[in-house]
Amino acid sequence: MKAIADVCVVPIGVGVSVSKYVAVCERIFRDAGLDAHLHAYGTNVEGEWDAVMGAVRKCHERIHEMGAPRISTSIRIGTRTDRAQTMQDKIDSVTSKLDE
Amino acid sequence: MKAIADVCVVPIGVGVSVSKYVAVCERIFRDAGLDAHLHAYGTNVEGEWDAVMGAVRKCHERIHEMGAPRISTSIRIGTRTDRAQTMQDKIDSVTSKLDE
Amino acid sequence: MKAIADVCVVPIGVGVSVSKYVAVCERIFRDAGLDAHLHAYGTNVEGEWDAVMGAVRKCHERIHEMGAPRISTSIRIGTRTDRAQTMQDKIDSVTSKLDE
Amino acid sequence: MKAIADVCVVPIGVGVSVSKYVAVCERIFRDAGLDAHLHAYGTNVEGEWDAVMGAVRKCHERIHEMGAPRISTSIRIGTRTDRAQTMQDKIDSVTSKLDE
Repeated sequence: MKAIADVCVVPIGVGVSVSKYVAVCERIFRDAGLDAHLHAYGTNVEGEWDAVMGAVRKCHERIHEMGAPRISTSIRIGTRTDRAQTMQDKIDSVTSKLDE
Repeated sequence: MKAIADVCVVPIGVGVSVSKYVAVCERIFRDAGLDAHLHAYGTNVEGEWDAVMGAVRKCHERIHEMGAPRISTSIRIGTRTDRAQTMQDKIDSVTSKLDE
Repeated sequence: MKAIADVCVVPIGVGVSVSKYVAVCERIFRDAGLDAHLHAYGTNVEGEWDAVMGAVRKCHERIHEMGAPRISTSIRIGTRTDRAQTMQDKIDSVTSKLDE
Repeated sequence: MKAIADVCVVPIGVGVSVSKYVAVCERIFRDAGLDAHLHAYGTNVEGEWDAVMGAVRKCHERIHEMGAPRISTSIRIGTRTDRAQTMQDKIDSVTSKLDE
């Protein structure tokens, strides 16, 4: 089952700057061979459901190993059976309507 | 790795009433032996990470089988390594401060 | 416009325990006259859109005053025009299907 | 109070394609003078808290007017008092650590 997800990982108890933890997640997504695009409040990730969710789990494991005692992650995940759709398709579908 | 999650599944393309799909998810969580509590905008689920996320995947599979062509789910998932904490502990921790 | 929301406030940079901040939000929701129900990963809130969102803003203001330098909140908010529906209606609609 | 938000609006009961509704939201964000960046699972929005949240409310109103009987929106919203930070700052902060 293919999925498109949006993942925002928030380490708690490591102070106010969390960018180094987010950078580690970016690497995990890429090392997993997932198509990943960082934005200002999370990361779009596209791939097989288990690969996407396995990578999110690995983010938690790695961030705990780095010393964060607590992590709260928010995820949106979408699947569809009517047709194949990539992340770029979703963006194009909206922007084509903006140009009208 | 133990996790506490909050899961809100939104089937798209099946009309305005989605409660029968949410009820199916409730059964999936319970059949998986997870501690699950329905609220007005999602379900709290507690258990091992893979059991929780496996159940969410099964919700998508089952709801697609029921005819929904598209599903968008929002998930919060938290883990901590400093101490064990149940869903009830989290609630008690807040309500004890309300009584002060 | 009536709304049903689910709000999860995460203060960042104040250590691992966040329950006292969540307790403050509970009081803000209640003082605003909103119907609010705490669960293990957020709070269900029901009321007029502006009252609900105004209370969330007040949560951020108050938690910053308490010393938290950064806050990340996740919100689900739903509105419908086809019929009136309370938080209890939503829960009843699902649980009635569980009993079938 | 400045805020950075991520907004994902899901109209329910209007079929499987929701891109025209998302396009309407994009226009609302831009017409409000907000800095907005569409991604594959939502839109990053930056501005004053009330301007951002007022625009989200306007999205609901407009989408209901277009005929959607029900809408479920997921929002992340962040504020910080320790320093000013733009959406681009957040992205740069992570990517600089990827290059290390």
